[in-house]
Amino acid sequence: MQTEDRILAILKAKKDFVSGEELSHTFGLTRMGIWKVIQRIKSLGYVITAQPHEGYKLTSIPDRLIPFELTWNLKTKCIGKNVLAFERVASTNDNAYELANSGAKEGTVVVSEEQSEGKGRLGRSWISPPYKGIYMSIILRPDILPLDAPKITLIATLSVCRSISEMTSLLSFIKWPNDVIINGRKVCGILTEMNAEVDRINFLIAGIGVNVNTDRSCLPKEASSIKEEFGIRISRIELMRLIMIRFDEYYEVFQRKGFGTILSEIKRLSYSLGKRVRVHYLDRFIEGHVQDIDKDGALILRLDNGFIERISAGDLVNVR
Amino acid sequence: MQTEDRILAILKAKKDFVSGEELSHTFGLTRMGIWKVIQRIKSLGYVITAQPHEGYKLTSIPDRLIPFELTWNLKTKCIGKNVLAFERVASTNDNAYELANSGAKEGTVVVSEEQSEGKGRLGRSWISPPYKGIYMSIILRPDILPLDAPKITLIATLSVCRSISEMTSLLSFIKWPNDVIINGRKVCGILTEMNAEVDRINFLIAGIGVNVNTDRSCLPKEASSIKEEFGIRISRIELMRLIMIRFDEYYEVFQRKGFGTILSEIKRLSYSLGKRVRVHYLDRFIEGHVQDIDKDGALILRLDNGFIERISAGDLVNVR
Repeated sequence: MQTEDRILAILKAKKDFVSGEELSHTFGLTRMGIWKVIQRIKSLGYVITAQPHEGYKLTSIPDRLIPFELTWNLKTKCIGKNVLAFERVASTNDNAYELANSGAKEGTVVVSEEQSEGKGRLGRSWISPPYKGIYMSIILRPDILPLDAPKITLIATLSVCRSISEMTSLLSFIKWPNDVIINGRKVCGILTEMNAEVDRINFLIAGIGVNVNTDRSCLPKEASSIKEEFGIRISRIELMRLIMIRFDEYYEVFQRKGFGTILSEIKRLSYSLGKRVRVHYLDRFIEGHVQDIDKDGALILRLDNGFIERISAGDLVNVR
Repeated sequence: MQTEDRILAILKAKKDFVSGEELSHTFGLTRMGIWKVIQRIKSLGYVITAQPHEGYKLTSIPDRLIPFELTWNLKTKCIGKNVLAFERVASTNDNAYELANSGAKEGTVVVSEEQSEGKGRLGRSWISPPYKGIYMSIILRPDILPLDAPKITLIATLSVCRSISEMTSLLSFIKWPNDVIINGRKVCGILTEMNAEVDRINFLIAGIGVNVNTDRSCLPKEASSIKEEFGIRISRIELMRLIMIRFDEYYEVFQRKGFGTILSEIKRLSYSLGKRVRVHYLDRFIEGHVQDIDKDGALILRLDNGFIERISAGDLVNVR
């Protein structure tokens, strides 16, 4: 840890004034040296009150996705042990992909305040205005087959859905296979990409885009943000921490016990189960009644002619 | 085309002496200029006889995987329209992967005379001594799901199996999912790698390694080469051209008509269908009778207890 992070940790833990003398002593720096470190911390957007005779006190934390804040006391087993944060990248998935290709560890997270070429499924874009959303990518190395990758997408979707509900008490739903929906509008999308052999995944990138405090005017018509639906801004740091914690838990359950218990939770939060939908799937449009999500995460659709269709991925619209 | 390739094309087409004067005239070069080009061609290993008053005649072609020879009059629709040849690379799959990632076209082929880190399935290595084998990788961009990738492996295996049989009349078989077998010994392996989303393959690399004129002493115990089984060396150029032609045909059939007709050919050439096998599959060993290869290319195994197991990939050994 750098001196900045260590001093921040002390200020955060103390929640009150910490004397400059004490800090000088702890870090073997002069009072002027400590003052300089405090200035560097303040330059990140932290508000630190300095009082003669009393010392320094942390008054407010900036709304910025700073690795120190994201990982401070984060009690996960695997996800977010290493967070790499950027001001602006083309696409966090692309950065994470390169990192994974160079051997980055499972659970490494890339996050950026802005994406110039944010990616959605099937070559679409993901609008990523600065300081408003969470654009993060998790590097995973699960011991599963490529055909099991949709389960990881669903685990990510579930993690975000649960995290939003916990922080806001808004009813949020999973729109199979990769969106989170509030009041019928999309606030989060997942893009899972992988590097694989036929019978082994070398690595997988779970890309998560959440519209947190984004103004609706910046977003496509069918999309919204948590702020727009909740009425007030929420802490992106807290939400991102929670997403990493939930993902870590579900991912561990998945690896130890399989997909079963996770699947039942996904079904409970499903936006389309039991409803009539239209699906765009490999250049076809089909309509039917969503009967189930099966043990591999595929959608089981009952068509009007009575036939059952199993769909492993596609675009889905609830109808009527 | 470079002047070298154009002069080579003329010499190959004529199959007799071509006068230096005619070449000078055609290319607008001096006689000395033509002589220099001929020297450059000879430096590649071509034998060209020069006769006063008669001119130049192509007498022999080197046993080298030269793009000109590999693509000359190659009548494929897609595969091998662009061949990139190297003397030595770490792995042709890695080169092809990078090229594909930078946008290389479908059908682009990478080939190398030697691989320092030739790759097999599941992180294994592929012994790749210089000037003995064919180590090639085909870049593909099929509009299929990741779970359909095993079909591409089987198409590659079938293409090599057919090509070997055509050139040598040796009985060669497909050992599911990715080997070609002659006299019970492996002479070819396929490594398919991909870059994919959950519901789209961005690109796929079909890596093909063939032991052509390799001495058995260079190979692992269970492996052999075409030369060892056939008794004499065969032309690597001719074999590689044939592989590209067959792959091109099967790949087109696959895209236009689906996997059905290809599957029946694969079954006909299967080494294990109807036999008893032991399969190593995701940390398990199971034994049973190979009952079928299903429409997705998966192995259908009947276990001794009567249960049917469907296996999408694994290592297989025929027993008894």
